[in-house]
Parts: sequence; C-alpha cells; structure tokens
Amino acid sequence: MARIVMKFGGTSMAGTERIRRVANIVRRHQEAGHEVAVVVSAMAGETDRLVNFCREANALYDPAEYDVVVSSGEQVTSGLLALTLQSMGCKARSWLGWQLPMKTVEAHSKARVDNIDSEALISAMQSGEIAVIPGFQGVSMENRITTMGRGGSDTSAVAVAAAVKADRCDIYTDVDGVYTTDPRIVAKARKLKYVTYEEMLELASVGAKVLQTRSVSLAMKENVRIQVLSSFVDENAPLADDMPGTMIVSDDEMEDVDMERQLVTGIAHDKNESRVVLTRVPDQPGAVSSIFGPLADASINVDMIIQNVGRDKGETDVTFTVPQADLARAQALLEEKREAIGYNRIITDAHVAKISVVGVGMKSHAGVAATMFKTLADRGINVQAISTSEIKVSVLIDEDETELAVRVLHTAYGLDATDEAA
Amino acid sequence: MARIVMKFGGTSMAGTERIRRVANIVRRHQEAGHEVAVVVSAMAGETDRLVNFCREANALYDPAEYDVVVSSGEQVTSGLLALTLQSMGCKARSWLGWQLPMKTVEAHSKARVDNIDSEALISAMQSGEIAVIPGFQGVSMENRITTMGRGGSDTSAVAVAAAVKADRCDIYTDVDGVYTTDPRIVAKARKLKYVTYEEMLELASVGAKVLQTRSVSLAMKENVRIQVLSSFVDENAPLADDMPGTMIVSDDEMEDVDMERQLVTGIAHDKNESRVVLTRVPDQPGAVSSIFGPLADASINVDMIIQNVGRDKGETDVTFTVPQADLARAQALLEEKREAIGYNRIITDAHVAKISVVGVGMKSHAGVAATMFKTLADRGINVQAISTSEIKVSVLIDEDETELAVRVLHTAYGLDATDEAA
Repeated sequence: MARIVMKFGGTSMAGTERIRRVANIVRRHQEAGHEVAVVVSAMAGETDRLVNFCREANALYDPAEYDVVVSSGEQVTSGLLALTLQSMGCKARSWLGWQLPMKTVEAHSKARVDNIDSEALISAMQSGEIAVIPGFQGVSMENRITTMGRGGSDTSAVAVAAAVKADRCDIYTDVDGVYTTDPRIVAKARKLKYVTYEEMLELASVGAKVLQTRSVSLAMKENVRIQVLSSFVDENAPLADDMPGTMIVSDDEMEDVDMERQLVTGIAHDKNESRVVLTRVPDQPGAVSSIFGPLADASINVDMIIQNVGRDKGETDVTFTVPQADLARAQALLEEKREAIGYNRIITDAHVAKISVVGVGMKSHAGVAATMFKTLADRGINVQAISTSEIKVSVLIDEDETELAVRVLHTAYGLDATDEAA
Repeated sequence: MARIVMKFGGTSMAGTERIRRVANIVRRHQEAGHEVAVVVSAMAGETDRLVNFCREANALYDPAEYDVVVSSGEQVTSGLLALTLQSMGCKARSWLGWQLPMKTVEAHSKARVDNIDSEALISAMQSGEIAVIPGFQGVSMENRITTMGRGGSDTSAVAVAAAVKADRCDIYTDVDGVYTTDPRIVAKARKLKYVTYEEMLELASVGAKVLQTRSVSLAMKENVRIQVLSSFVDENAPLADDMPGTMIVSDDEMEDVDMERQLVTGIAHDKNESRVVLTRVPDQPGAVSSIFGPLADASINVDMIIQNVGRDKGETDVTFTVPQADLARAQALLEEKREAIGYNRIITDAHVAKISVVGVGMKSHAGVAATMFKTLADRGINVQAISTSEIKVSVLIDEDETELAVRVLHTAYGLDATDEAA
C-alpha cells in the first residue's frame, strides 16, 4: 500500500471519453490498495480559449481577473473526473484550490505554492475517498483565485505530493517516459529507467519538454519522486507500481539504483534559439552591460554569450543567443541603442540549433566535452558557440545539421539501444 | 445617486463583443453617480454544454460535483466583465459565490440563498468599485459550491439587491419589458409601466417567461423593486433611471403610481398543457386520491381539475391537465393503475391551450370572469375547463383558437394600444 499522487494533462482530459479512460487508470490503482489523489489539467485547448477571451476583453489584463477566468478549465475537469469515478463505484470528490486551501504567494498568473493545508485531504484519502484536485490553481492570501503559469499543473501535483508526503508522484503524459534523445530523430533512442532532477532540469531547459521546469525544481527541493509515464494504456497495462515509465530521483537514489551509469544520460536539441552578432563593439568597461542591460530590462532571456577576440585593436565582436520569439524585439531594441553601445553592424541568424549533452556522470569525468567537439568535427559540423554547466555541454550549430549532430553524438556516447528500438 | 444591482442574461453575455456592450451600459450608470453591482449569467449555450458533460460523465450525477462543473460558466463571464470594465477605465472586481460569501441552504443544484455577507461588498461599491457577481452560484455551509437551478441568476440578482439594500434591481433581458400580452400575437399589445409581484407571478406561471418565478417571489418577500428592460440598446439610450422598462412593484407602490389602473393587466397563454379525461370513475370517497396520489408521487404537476356530473348514477368523468412533457408518463402510470382507480376509458388531448386573464384589480371587481366567458362564447370558442385564483381566471380551449382568444380578450378588457403599437 502506498500513497500516490497521479497527474493527468490536457490531452488525457480532452472530453468525457478520455476522462473515462483516466478514471479507469485511477480506479485500478485505488483497487490495488493505494491512497490516491489526482491532479488534473483543463481539457486540451480550453485554457487557450479562455486566455483568448481575456485578451479580447482587455489587452492589458488584470492578472487577478485573468486567474478567475482561466482557472475555470481545471474546475470543470476536476468535477467531471469526480463524477466519472463515482459512476464506477468509487468514492471521490473535487477539492478546489480555495477549498484545500492551496495558499500561493507572489503575483497572480505566476503564483507559487506557499503551503497546502493537507489535514482534511489526507484524512479523506485515508477514508478511501479519491481526492480530485484541479491543477494550475491556488488561492492568494487575500482569498482571490491564483494560477501558476502555463503548465502549472505539474507543479500543483508535486506540491500536493509533498504536502501529503506521497510515496510517488506519477505524471501521466502523451509520452511513455524520458528518452536518451528525441525518438523521432534517433530510432535507437532508449527510454531511461531513471534520471536525476538536475539532468531532467537540463533536458527540459534545452528543449526536451516533458515536465514544467518548475515542477522538477520543486520536486528536487521537496525530494518528491516523480514518475513520467503514458496515459494512453489499456485495461491490462501494468500498474504504475511496476515502474513502466521513467523515475526522476535524487542523486542519492540514483547511486543506489544505477551504480554503473553512463557518463552521459541524454542528448537534447533546441531549434528555438537565434544568434545575434554585434560587430566592432568598443572593447571597454561597460560595453557589455550597455548591451545586456536593456535586453534584461525587456525580459529577453539571453543564453549563450561569446566575446570574440577583436579584429582591430580596442574593438571586439559580441555573439549571443536569444529565443526566436524575442529576436525581432531584441533587434529593434539594439538598433535603438546603437549609438549608446557603439557597435558597427548587427547580424542575426534564426537558422541555428542548440545541441546539449547532459549527464550527472560528467561531473566526475573529464573528456565529455572533448568527445563532443571531436565527434562533430569529424562530421564537418561547425560549432558557432559553446556553453557549459556542471552536468551539461551545449553547442550552437547550423539548424540544418541538428538531426545529424544528435544522431552521431547519441552513438558516440554509447546511448544507442542494442537489440531493438524502445 | 442610487445603489443599483444590474443583471445581464446569457444572450447579453454571449462573447466578448456583447460583454463590451454590457460594460458600456454599466459604465454609463456608474458615471451617473450610482453605486453599482452587476450579476451575470454564463454565455448563452455554455451551461447546456457543461450540463451535457456531467450527464456524459455520470447519468446519475452527484449534484455537488455537478455544481462544481456548471458554476464555472458564470465564473468566466464575471471575470471577463470585470476585465472589460477595467479596459474602459472603471474600477471593477469579481466576487465569486464563495468569496462574498453567498451562503445557501438546501440541496445542491437547487440551492436557496440563506444570507449574503454584504459588508465588504457595500464598502467596495461605496469606494466606486463596480462589483461583478456570477449569478446562479453560492456556497453551502460545508464550503462547497452550490447552484440555484436553471435561470437562478435572476434570483441571485434579487438576493444581492436585498442584501445591499439596493434602490432597484434592473434585470436586462432580450425584451424591453413586460407586455399586456405576447406582441407576436397582438400587434396592439402595450408595454406595462408597472406590474405587481403577484401579477408577474401569475403571468410567469402561465407562460409569459421573462423572469425566473423564484426571483419574483423573493423580490416580493424582500420588497425589492425590479425593473425589466432591454440590454440591446445603443450608447444614447436613456439610463435605467428614466424607467424605460417595466417596474415590478408591491401592491402599495402600485396604488401610489397608478390610481386609475385597469381591472385586467394582461392576457397570458400556455400551449404546454395537455388534457386528460378518465371516464366513468366510481363516484365514491377515495376515487380522486387514487388518481392524483400516484401522479404526485411521480412529480407530475396537475393543474386544472374538473369533476363532471356523472352520466350514470354513481359514476363521474374526471378531467385534468398535466404538462405536455409529462403526458406520456402520466398516461402510462394511469393505465397501470386502471384497476385500482376503476375508470372506463382514458382520453388524452395535447392539442389544448390555457388562456389566462391576470390583474390585481379584479380582486375588488366582479364581472371579470363573466366578461371572459361571454367574449369567448361570442366567438364560438368552447371552454373545456376553468380555474381561478384571486387575481387570475384561466380557461382551457382548443389550441388552434389560442391567437383568436388572446386577441379578442385583449380588446374586450380595453388593453389595446390606442395611437401606435408599442
């Protein structure tokens, strides 16, 4: 017997037929003797519909009223799942954010969970009642509805799991786990049985979007074990207890379960970056902050930064990347500041990709970066920029070479599945 | 300066364009110096959509979870109206049922308002903030969301008006007031400037559906003045203060404003009744209760009842009406009980209409019923059944004669507009 939190996303909740399939999965786990809480997203497309209403009503919308509107999608699915579970003979009830209450702090529309009053919730779960909780929503100290940013239901689920001290938080998605790389690119990609929080964070932040990044940070902080697994399973599929998905765990647990782990866990790619080069920037104190200060003020997130050796004395080229969605805004801003910065030309290239090699194992092993550069060089792939962290090496390359780079790196680090594709 | 509650129905709230029109009406009244609360329905069609989801999820749905789901429609429109008002420079916020709180009692899905904590609401209104309140929803003593039955937003509005001691509750609809009869039948129908609560109740219960019946009962009990008026007006339309609609008021107020009032206020018709005749029922104690007991147990509402003089000694024909929607069920039930009741034949006729003459003035004047029977007889319209109350006389006639009957009665009681159609 365990206490588990299960979370289902919008695709799984899209319509009463799919909700019935979700209810079946929940019912099977309760019948296995578990205490169960379920966190649900809105039906796929519903939150977009509601956000559009808000934008039409008021372009500069008040986030407090925005939250009133957009939180309704999860309210609907939580009620419907409770009804469906009841129709199968299960005891179930919905607990809205303000009913728990799930108290949040900070701004509306990007609230953070502060605390959840778990006493009533735990006692309901212990009595055999399935607790159905709308994700994404909470309540502020002023008793107004709050929401936690798009994808916030993952974070809700982890917060609930921490509050009720769950043995596990099973996050059901439209993929069946976390892979060594994108299986659409590499047929020999393997599903990982375990991945650490830090690795998951790096994989998520470089484009392998399975979970909301914040949910992983919160799980790491609260030491909540997460399993990523598929909601598209039939009546005879193994229970989540059999660990059919990928477990996201602490470094410590990882050492216990996987002594012989690889140096590299996975290869991620991200085509949403753009490269910006400013030529002939004066090589003097304050030049860099005159570039990145205004970008930061405009909430444009700069990722990789390289300052090339200047061709002329006292001048240097500065290269950096920004999200493609922000490129036009960044360019306009930089052109406006041209005099102040004192650069010569601005060159932009949206046709780039960031490839990242991620693995907690590389902390203690040199040579991972060297292998990466050599592998790419052998195939004639030019590296335009590099950035590294303790458990990640990223390079910027031409977008057309994305698939080739991922494939050769996957092989080079010994990640290819042996017998059969996963 | 007055304190007013304004209520807008689903047709007026259907989409952001229409919500903008509503916001304009609200803004104009606030700018006129009033303290304003607005009660809103869900977008037209939305509650049906949500009810269908519930039915699909669980045919025997738990009303507590049903309320969680269906209350979301009004939550959305209240947030959107607050946003739209803000976009016009007004101070506005939404107050959900649980935030006020609007405490309700009795069953989920048909809750009744018990009390509204109006202190915070009044203080917000006094500060110049427009209070936007979702109709239809409240919160139970157990802190669960409740709803008040279809059309419950009218009742919410009246309850809010009573709680904040509003000078007036303006209910905006897709008609511009209450008429002496259906203007689609009688071109010379006149819009009434005033109507009493009792008259409105009789008009509503016999088919002139403008307001939810319960809202009128509540207004009568709490002495809330209601104005029915059109939400489909332009920027230059008169304010509600100029009383462009129909005021629903107490007998006392009516005497003050309309000393010379007519005997008859309006003519209503209802084609949703069916006639049932049971022939040769034993004329003995208990016979009637053996008929109407089972119908009441099945929640079939019997309206008019006539017991004819029996043709044979010891036997009688019993005629009564039931709603057309219940006719098949009533017939099946009566056939099942045939032996117990002891009747000979059952004859049903869905092709009937109930015509009612309503007016508080008839309390003190005889002759209203006589005028009705004579007017109909002069046109050869056969009266199949009669029922009366203090302020109403109703007759059952052949459905084909509905329009003719309404027209000749409208003229007979001097209700026709003189110069021009309203």
